[in-house]
Amino acid sequence: MNSMKAPLMALALFLIFTLRCNGGITSSFTRKPHPSIDMPFGSDVFKAPPGFNAPQQVHITQGDYEGKSVIVSWVTAKKTGSNLVLYGKANDKHKLSALAKVTTYKFYNYTSGFIHHCTLNDLEYNTKYFYEIGSEDSSRQFSFFTPPEVGPDVPYTFGLIGDLGQTYDSNQTLEHYHSNPKGQAVLFIGDLSYADHYPLHDNRRWDSWGRFTERSAAYQPWIWCAGNHEMDFAPEIGETTLFKPYMHRYPVPYKASGSTSPLWYAIKRASAHIIVLSSYSAFGTYTPQYEWLQTELTKVDRTKTPWLIVIVHSPLYNTNNYHYMEGEGMRVMFESWFVENKVDVVLSGHVHSYERMERVSNIAYNISNKECTPVKSEDAPVYLNLGDGGNIEGSAAEFIQPQPSYSAFREASFGHGTLEIKNRTHAFYSWHRNEDGVRTVADSVWFYNRYYHPSE
Amino acid sequence: MNSMKAPLMALALFLIFTLRCNGGITSSFTRKPHPSIDMPFGSDVFKAPPGFNAPQQVHITQGDYEGKSVIVSWVTAKKTGSNLVLYGKANDKHKLSALAKVTTYKFYNYTSGFIHHCTLNDLEYNTKYFYEIGSEDSSRQFSFFTPPEVGPDVPYTFGLIGDLGQTYDSNQTLEHYHSNPKGQAVLFIGDLSYADHYPLHDNRRWDSWGRFTERSAAYQPWIWCAGNHEMDFAPEIGETTLFKPYMHRYPVPYKASGSTSPLWYAIKRASAHIIVLSSYSAFGTYTPQYEWLQTELTKVDRTKTPWLIVIVHSPLYNTNNYHYMEGEGMRVMFESWFVENKVDVVLSGHVHSYERMERVSNIAYNISNKECTPVKSEDAPVYLNLGDGGNIEGSAAEFIQPQPSYSAFREASFGHGTLEIKNRTHAFYSWHRNEDGVRTVADSVWFYNRYYHPSE
Repeated sequence: MNSMKAPLMALALFLIFTLRCNGGITSSFTRKPHPSIDMPFGSDVFKAPPGFNAPQQVHITQGDYEGKSVIVSWVTAKKTGSNLVLYGKANDKHKLSALAKVTTYKFYNYTSGFIHHCTLNDLEYNTKYFYEIGSEDSSRQFSFFTPPEVGPDVPYTFGLIGDLGQTYDSNQTLEHYHSNPKGQAVLFIGDLSYADHYPLHDNRRWDSWGRFTERSAAYQPWIWCAGNHEMDFAPEIGETTLFKPYMHRYPVPYKASGSTSPLWYAIKRASAHIIVLSSYSAFGTYTPQYEWLQTELTKVDRTKTPWLIVIVHSPLYNTNNYHYMEGEGMRVMFESWFVENKVDVVLSGHVHSYERMERVSNIAYNISNKECTPVKSEDAPVYLNLGDGGNIEGSAAEFIQPQPSYSAFREASFGHGTLEIKNRTHAFYSWHRNEDGVRTVADSVWFYNRYYHPSE
Repeated sequence: MNSMKAPLMALALFLIFTLRCNGGITSSFTRKPHPSIDMPFGSDVFKAPPGFNAPQQVHITQGDYEGKSVIVSWVTAKKTGSNLVLYGKANDKHKLSALAKVTTYKFYNYTSGFIHHCTLNDLEYNTKYFYEIGSEDSSRQFSFFTPPEVGPDVPYTFGLIGDLGQTYDSNQTLEHYHSNPKGQAVLFIGDLSYADHYPLHDNRRWDSWGRFTERSAAYQPWIWCAGNHEMDFAPEIGETTLFKPYMHRYPVPYKASGSTSPLWYAIKRASAHIIVLSSYSAFGTYTPQYEWLQTELTKVDRTKTPWLIVIVHSPLYNTNNYHYMEGEGMRVMFESWFVENKVDVVLSGHVHSYERMERVSNIAYNISNKECTPVKSEDAPVYLNLGDGGNIEGSAAEFIQPQPSYSAFREASFGHGTLEIKNRTHAFYSWHRNEDGVRTVADSVWFYNRYYHPSE
């Protein structure tokens, strides 16, 4: 058998095991049934680093609009500790330094550790940096790569992870992504720790999640988007400041894109313009998020960043009975903008399964007439639902039958995605199912850029 | 001609001058064209009361869930002044007293006066109270009636005013309402002062509006709902705290209904349960407003309050090209709840014209099928758009043609509404057009209660 035949036969075999409706595929893959439970606090993945007051929960994110800045964040448990970040390239004789700001917060009976955020500015593009935090016997060293300078043909690979949580399944998802050498930055689609699943929103689960994800998030930027589990709204215990733990722990460079809230913002990275929205903030006409998005879309320059990506937690399209049409409020407000601006991909999570849509648009819908069924449109984005990180709430397995025509592929199991941007016209997207500990590509497709290659 | 024939002939004559499409009426009444301009600061209606530091901008609103409490608010310009409210019934030998809390705010280069809010509790139902504020030569006396005890057959008349502003038209609207002896409380549908129309959101226009509306609002409660012009979002001058002037000036008893924000809340008054929502806050699934509304609807007891009224600034149905479908985001989230709970009336403003809808529902709409045209439903509320207070932005005269079937009556002019609840089954609704200074009823209809008289 030559090298081409094997994958083709595997594909044929795979298709035999899928159910086809209206052209879309409902995968017949069945996840081994086991309860979705959080790993206990004592698990290895949650261990604090050795040394008194050592920095823990280290994570980085992009710190500016164009990718020349990184925000380094960490927590110290016992006392404030050193604010200093020493950083530089491998051969630098003299390290650079920057000082972190420190914040803490209380949530009912919980008091956070000392949360440090330090912005490293004026970095060189496409360069490996080392950074060191903590002091003496508890100091720790990490490294990251800056992205290439923004440009239309810069290849770059994003990991796509949503609804991660901290179960044994979450651990598989993270390990599979982490062991994939291609991923350069994570687009995180909301719902981080699921601490709110516990009585009093046990914020120690925010700490354990920070330690759990450090293995990836300390070494490459995770681009954050808030989900419903970040609201931490608990009026019954007097906690009514929305997004309090999330906003204290996960800073984003929202001011760089003219936003007035960390919950919606944009960055450019390599050949992508990435817009992050908030399903759980106001998005009605004239609201800050609405006004900001309208302006941000005018700032997108496809000749510099051909790839336009939107991240929003609650999906605009979904064919699962779980959370069906919950994102409809935002769809009726923003979908026409996505189509008019030829957004390439909209990443959502929230529904705990995997689904990829056809390029469809429902913007012809109007309450005074009947044109309300999504139709195929080459101007429309591909909507991807990647709420399949594997959290404590388990899998969403009840799909709407028959499969609506706008659904291309769906499967009720766990995994993560990768988006490999090759150049201004092509990007290879794949979805990696968590299967028995082996990283498997269960769905993949070439995306043609909507600006440079609008017809498929 | 006997007494019955005259109104019938007037009605016939009126119908001759209206245009009928799809059963709905587009009124042919043409408002005399004149610019919508604000009355100048020096106008009589804006005059501060005499006396040093005299209380001004006096207004009252309901202070609790059931109508036994009133919040009295006023502003002093020069210094804090007296916090005291003396109050009592006409024949009371000893006046009662209560103390106000005082707040101030800054908005860019504006500093507010001293804003006093005082809650008068444990009032008797159905009683006239006098109250006195200020001191010595600048003291002022006002009065109000408490509502009858909540009960299913308590008659009560609400004034319905939206998008008022402070133009010469606004003055007509207010004067017409004020000269109508029937109105006992105003349901205000959002967009108060239009101060944000001015450079730097000239907050002196908030003060002038407070003086302008005092003639009514000091004597009967105005029940507040926030519109887009209350956001006062001005990042260009560093003002990013939404609803700052509004929330400092117009307190509402939101905690009494378990709400965590003054922007959504409920009260019971006489035979009505009134729910106020915010178009410009988050209303997605799981957000505080969403969760609160879901709970509040379970608390409605139609055997005690047969009339269920919702106030929300941006209309869910509208057939004007102006702001068409802006409220669609909230419609797709909340309309099914309104229909399931048989809401009687939904009051909206925002569109600067008048429109009354048929009882229609579009909850069968679903993105995977085509049932998306509103259909008549006896479970559905009547949607009223009363954005016709007469503000500085002028009239919205471009209606969608032909008139969609769900629109019953529409007219691009100014006015106000009244809702006369008679008993558990009947309420008489009328719309009063501002016409050449004469209060004219241009549209009226009997509403049958959706709980006690569900078929029409």
